[in-house]
Amino acid sequence: MNQREEFPSLYGISDREAEELCQDLRHRVVDVVSQTGGHLASNLGVVELTVALHRVYDTGRDRLVFDVGHQCYVHKMLTGRNGRMETLRALGGIAGFPKPSESKHDACISGHASTAVSTALGMAIARTRQQEDYRVVALLGDGSLTGGLAYEGLSMAGQREEPMVVILNDNGMSIDASMGGVAQHLARQRLKPQYLQAKEIYRKIMLATPPGRALYRFLHKVKEGIKASMLPGGMFENMGFRYMGPVDGHDVKGLTRILRYAAAVDGPVLLHVKTTKGKGYGPAERTPDTFHGTGPFQVEDGALLKGSICAITAAMTGGTGLAGFAEQFPKRFFDVGIAEGHAVTMAAGMAKQGLIPVFAVYSTFLQRGYDMLIHDVAIDKLHVVFCVDRAGLVGDDGETHHGLFDAAFLNTIPGITVLCPASLDELSAMLRRAIYELSGPVAVRYPRGGENHYSGDHSQDPACVLQEGSDLTLVSFGTLTGSILQTAQRLRREGISAQVVKLNQITPLPKEAVLRSLKETGRLLVAQECAEPGSPGEGLLAAAAAAGIPLKRAALCSCGDGFVPHGTVPQLRERCGLDLESLYQKAREVATYGSEKTSGCPAH
Amino acid sequence: MNQREEFPSLYGISDREAEELCQDLRHRVVDVVSQTGGHLASNLGVVELTVALHRVYDTGRDRLVFDVGHQCYVHKMLTGRNGRMETLRALGGIAGFPKPSESKHDACISGHASTAVSTALGMAIARTRQQEDYRVVALLGDGSLTGGLAYEGLSMAGQREEPMVVILNDNGMSIDASMGGVAQHLARQRLKPQYLQAKEIYRKIMLATPPGRALYRFLHKVKEGIKASMLPGGMFENMGFRYMGPVDGHDVKGLTRILRYAAAVDGPVLLHVKTTKGKGYGPAERTPDTFHGTGPFQVEDGALLKGSICAITAAMTGGTGLAGFAEQFPKRFFDVGIAEGHAVTMAAGMAKQGLIPVFAVYSTFLQRGYDMLIHDVAIDKLHVVFCVDRAGLVGDDGETHHGLFDAAFLNTIPGITVLCPASLDELSAMLRRAIYELSGPVAVRYPRGGENHYSGDHSQDPACVLQEGSDLTLVSFGTLTGSILQTAQRLRREGISAQVVKLNQITPLPKEAVLRSLKETGRLLVAQECAEPGSPGEGLLAAAAAAGIPLKRAALCSCGDGFVPHGTVPQLRERCGLDLESLYQKAREVATYGSEKTSGCPAH
Repeated sequence: MNQREEFPSLYGISDREAEELCQDLRHRVVDVVSQTGGHLASNLGVVELTVALHRVYDTGRDRLVFDVGHQCYVHKMLTGRNGRMETLRALGGIAGFPKPSESKHDACISGHASTAVSTALGMAIARTRQQEDYRVVALLGDGSLTGGLAYEGLSMAGQREEPMVVILNDNGMSIDASMGGVAQHLARQRLKPQYLQAKEIYRKIMLATPPGRALYRFLHKVKEGIKASMLPGGMFENMGFRYMGPVDGHDVKGLTRILRYAAAVDGPVLLHVKTTKGKGYGPAERTPDTFHGTGPFQVEDGALLKGSICAITAAMTGGTGLAGFAEQFPKRFFDVGIAEGHAVTMAAGMAKQGLIPVFAVYSTFLQRGYDMLIHDVAIDKLHVVFCVDRAGLVGDDGETHHGLFDAAFLNTIPGITVLCPASLDELSAMLRRAIYELSGPVAVRYPRGGENHYSGDHSQDPACVLQEGSDLTLVSFGTLTGSILQTAQRLRREGISAQVVKLNQITPLPKEAVLRSLKETGRLLVAQECAEPGSPGEGLLAAAAAAGIPLKRAALCSCGDGFVPHGTVPQLRERCGLDLESLYQKAREVATYGSEKTSGCPAH
Repeated sequence: MNQREEFPSLYGISDREAEELCQDLRHRVVDVVSQTGGHLASNLGVVELTVALHRVYDTGRDRLVFDVGHQCYVHKMLTGRNGRMETLRALGGIAGFPKPSESKHDACISGHASTAVSTALGMAIARTRQQEDYRVVALLGDGSLTGGLAYEGLSMAGQREEPMVVILNDNGMSIDASMGGVAQHLARQRLKPQYLQAKEIYRKIMLATPPGRALYRFLHKVKEGIKASMLPGGMFENMGFRYMGPVDGHDVKGLTRILRYAAAVDGPVLLHVKTTKGKGYGPAERTPDTFHGTGPFQVEDGALLKGSICAITAAMTGGTGLAGFAEQFPKRFFDVGIAEGHAVTMAAGMAKQGLIPVFAVYSTFLQRGYDMLIHDVAIDKLHVVFCVDRAGLVGDDGETHHGLFDAAFLNTIPGITVLCPASLDELSAMLRRAIYELSGPVAVRYPRGGENHYSGDHSQDPACVLQEGSDLTLVSFGTLTGSILQTAQRLRREGISAQVVKLNQITPLPKEAVLRSLKETGRLLVAQECAEPGSPGEGLLAAAAAAGIPLKRAALCSCGDGFVPHGTVPQLRERCGLDLESLYQKAREVATYGSEKTSGCPAH
């Protein structure tokens, strides 16, 4: 076979054929990486494991989730991309990491570490929820175990009964003296002869006496507690996994056998595989192979929308108002504990497989999921809905709990839509739109507490004009909408005519409605209950400058660029200049600056 | 004693007095919270524990680190704030969470969960490094164990030999069926009678036969493996902690005794305390107490700068160029594994105690520490230096690895300074300034690779003019400085005079230098190797609009608002319009738009 030809499905090949294929792939990896650069040793380390995975799983349908996916080259070669491997990491060529837009066989984005278990769990939940029967397998390196996200994922996966296989690719390479507990623990356990010795002595002595035998059986029956402490799997078994291994990661026959077994277990399995990075690199005979043709792609089933909406909370069932949902739809409700990063990544896995996950989370806690929003949700444009609760000032919990940064940090997430209801009706309407109409990541941000002198629903368009006017443009969104309307009414009584623009969406920013008004008024005040840097108000100012619209006066009324302490929300609004009186004074100043408007003279 | 009076030091009080004090404090908590609102049950749960802590530790000097600090009310009452507890959570009053600006007895900010171990470890490292002898104790609830950050912290703390005590306040309240492994495991272990039974049977049978006795002793000598699997401490012991407990969290005498013992251990201790939330709430007799006066504050020692600089990496010693430092200063070098969030929080702990931690991290991975930057570093204005490596386009690793978002997300961190060297000399100078001259959080962002047609050092001021001109203003920073200078030179040959402004700092944005130029030119091009939303270019446009400077034409040349795929850096720059030719064309268009400049006519 020409080295650029594609490999066929490995489903029915013999052990002997698999062994020969591994040889072939090992040479191919060396050839490719020597031309393109990339990760050589880690890919050589997983040749047999990848072949075994492809003998057991159909990756066009089953979901193979890589963690730090740079060990995906063999997988790519086996899934219709062998002929293009010379373009690895080149512009327009094959990516160095799994990429769903490149192939159906790549289950998800995976360039950062420790994400795989969370993603796989989300996918497994989606699978069960949708009564599908594909299988889910996550492959993570021991190095990824130092990341807390892996632990969050393992903790939850071990507690749920979702069938899924987590393969721990233990190459002992990522472990050094400074690294964390579990990886270290694994390394120690492998190296401590006294453990193995103790285990053997224990077995011998116990079985030598009748009470010993009884106890031996008893202890094994109650729980494999001793084994759990003696073998590396103890921690994983304690977490709720069925632990298998450690097994030789370069024995493709043995690996295939145990993978078939693991894949058939009705619950979470942790398979501990020991591999050697860079395995088999060196001069070796090339083995001709006998495979032709291209592996068939399975057609993805469309997700049924009905019943696919799931709610996720991070230990805030009551606070986020999900208690009712939890009671009514217990199977579609997920409390992940205090693990926001995991919640985001798990939601990505669910969305990838056709569910519509809705993660209700306080604004301040969503900061913990910033990287996961970018990496696990946004790159693959996944439809995850974020109910960003407690957005804005929260009051007495102070600095650590105000939701002042979400408007800015969500605005940096490519492809996200951020909606800002100003009333309960709008919250309902927007949530409905977020779930049923929009695609990609969507956030609906809303405050603590209820309505603030504003009701009804004007949320059809990204922005709307609530009051026509020609002297200045007043812009607001969310909580301050009512205050801005009141400000406009008060100005009107003084003969100042304000155009009131309400933003229903702050990302992407609906600039046009505001710019149209600014062309006439040349004066802008934006009232926003969020921090100023990176805020919608800054975006509007930048848009005005970019459009060449000269402003006579502009003001952003926001929560500033520092932290806001604790206090009641009205007190804090006053402190920030967001109370009615401050807004009025500021708006009046903007309207009259440089003119004699108030005394009836025209502007300069 | 009047209930508003302050409590004296508890250091020398008797067990009997401590018990009476607990009664008194319990009533006081109920009184206060009934007036102010706040967390009642969690504070009632830790009355005895807090009193015991204050009998053993001097919190003005020793560091008591709370995790989700809402259980700090008793601590606040005991540290000079009893008289002001009626202002709890009110504007200008006592905060509902620990707050260093409020009292020396509050070691750090702690409003979010799972941070305490990382913070405490950083403090313990600082203590040892500075040859101080204060003690460090972290108090975290079982609920916090569901957060990956807690695991990252525990993993590293268990591996290091820093004396510190981690108190697990296990009230079994945060645990429900959906929550994660360890907390769940704890709950299960407590409730499984067969474990206790098995342990007892095991001991009896083993000791009944000579070989059993030999094995019993042997196994206990080799390692307390069986105990480790039978008792909740197994996991913590595997991580490297000395495990103590579980102990009754409402026995102030017993708690004091075991705390004294734990505090004296020369290594990391995990003390498992079982408490009952809301303990003792109900009608009860008030016991008069006999303490007067105010607890003395210890004067904080100033940190010695010399030798206090530490380097931190998250499993990227080679990639971030720290191998030399690691070799030369092994005691001041910390590889935390793939645990960026923990690295940031641990750095905060180090900085809080007077070290100067420098965390070298790739831009894309720092996204994992976004919340920790805000919560653990910025609120308390801690001097942590971030070497943000791989900022900008990284090339062949693609979407998941480009450093395109840091300019925007760092700009949202209150009080941070973000420096942007454009040459190796500037990198040195800025790093020196970041460490020795600046305060608060500082980031130095620099690209993968070397210099890009620019060398020397013009980094003294936040911004500088590299070339005078009057037709348009060209702004750049970092990698694109050389390209913008070349663009200006090419324009000059065509008779277009460009003012070149180089930003050495992008947060806070040095707007004035740019606005001064814009007043003259009215035309702006900003070249920036980062995503556009929330970028410095947007900030400059907003500043121009706010200052009422009308622009004839403005353009931002950036990496856009989406993701950038893989390819070589030059290819990707071209794709983004950041190559020399694109910049030149765009600059020319900005300079000539609406005018006949090129044919010699004046602008409109």
